Amino acid sequence: MQNSSDRPLILITNDDGYQAKGINELAVCLRDLGDLVVFAPDGARSGMGSAITSLIPIKYKLIKQEPGLTIYSCTGTPVDCVKLALNEVLDRQPDLLVSGINHGGNMAICVNYSGTMGAAEEGCIFDIPSIGVSLLDHHADADFTECCRLGRLLARRVLREGLPHGTFLNLNVPKLPHVKGIKVCRQADGRWVREYKRSENASGESVFWLTGDFESAKPIHPENDMLALDCGYASLVPCKVDVTDYDFMNTLREWQL
Amino acid sequence: MQNSSDRPLILITNDDGYQAKGINELAVCLRDLGDLVVFAPDGARSGMGSAITSLIPIKYKLIKQEPGLTIYSCTGTPVDCVKLALNEVLDRQPDLLVSGINHGGNMAICVNYSGTMGAAEEGCIFDIPSIGVSLLDHHADADFTECCRLGRLLARRVLREGLPHGTFLNLNVPKLPHVKGIKVCRQADGRWVREYKRSENASGESVFWLTGDFESAKPIHPENDMLALDCGYASLVPCKVDVTDYDFMNTLREWQL
Repeated sequence: MQNSSDRPLILITNDDGYQAKGINELAVCLRDLGDLVVFAPDGARSGMGSAITSLIPIKYKLIKQEPGLTIYSCTGTPVDCVKLALNEVLDRQPDLLVSGINHGGNMAICVNYSGTMGAAEEGCIFDIPSIGVSLLDHHADADFTECCRLGRLLARRVLREGLPHGTFLNLNVPKLPHVKGIKVCRQADGRWVREYKRSENASGESVFWLTGDFESAKPIHPENDMLALDCGYASLVPCKVDVTDYDFMNTLREWQL
Repeated sequence: MQNSSDRPLILITNDDGYQAKGINELAVCLRDLGDLVVFAPDGARSGMGSAITSLIPIKYKLIKQEPGLTIYSCTGTPVDCVKLALNEVLDRQPDLLVSGINHGGNMAICVNYSGTMGAAEEGCIFDIPSIGVSLLDHHADADFTECCRLGRLLARRVLREGLPHGTFLNLNVPKLPHVKGIKVCRQADGRWVREYKRSENASGESVFWLTGDFESAKPIHPENDMLALDCGYASLVPCKVDVTDYDFMNTLREWQL
């Protein structure tokens, strides 16, 4: 792909597929900030986390090309999309990666299972300032107006300031017509409970559908992202690629294994 | 499942499937430490990271039951296996989760893409002391002797000491007949490069196979796991579920978004 513009290059991806409303609204609202390349899965890839496709090959297809906006679809996961775009398709390093807007929240430990955030983390591994944006509304026709406003605000700022090596951002926006503002937060601690609904398939076998409720760990930290969202704020959590528990290294050394 | 024993309950899973040599050798070497439940995918799930199955239901099947060892296979991802076992199958909380032994290394940023480590992290989210064990040998008939010895050593210790809330362990073992010992390490910084091999499918379309070389970020930290493995040690990295970049929170606040 040729892209000789002096404007910033912005790579956009998601886990709901290139046809989802969220990614298309995102592209519209970022349009004037740079040249956009949308490189996204060809269908829904929710819950893929940082999964990669290693046992079969992947491919991609040009969907649309017009000045300032190129759209590709890809058969892979969100992380595959980022890898393939950067390795094989783009002719220069993007100045920004935005993943989303996800139809549904990715706060607390959801960052772990989220394809949206997997893609943002992958951009970060490639040293691209990277942001995941999610709206707490699963509906296909959700209203992204307020989320676009805040996502655009953050994208502009990150384009200007950059992000530290190894750090990417997780923005979650509540389903409200007017959000109170953006709160910088930590990832909420907790876990999902009652995670399966049992039903029967046509052969009479038990099958299990993923569902569940999030249960916060106590005590609830006042800076956690779940709480900010509950109070009507958008939550912004800076996340690290490096998951090393530095505090526990010394204890482990004392085990003298 | 009834399990009224006073012996520790050890949940074993992997991402290579319940029939892989690595998980079966692991079960043999942990057998005397407790009652084992193997609950693992019905086939290869490499590179699934922390992916979960949300769009279709999953199911599981009892493969084998004998005193002290029960084996189930599951149609889901490694994380699905942990969730389903804990939500629907086991009648008590395991005292330990061991994921592996993976056929292939999961050092450096591979922790991010690894189904082996995704399962270990999921165990940790459920507050089970959890370990991922990987051997740097992809072969189906790899020699797991030395890796089993070290994995067992670590499993015994973790059964006794426990692990802090939110911390799980990543053990990688080099492909050597005699490993020098276990070194406590940090996750190596770096990225994969030259990640695709292009070929053509039967229709003449370009398809892309994942491959690549790991490139360490410079300078290379003397405590990183890649280096320890290169020097003939097994690497042990304590990992955190919480990926918040606490250092960067203040800078983000100064942006006054």
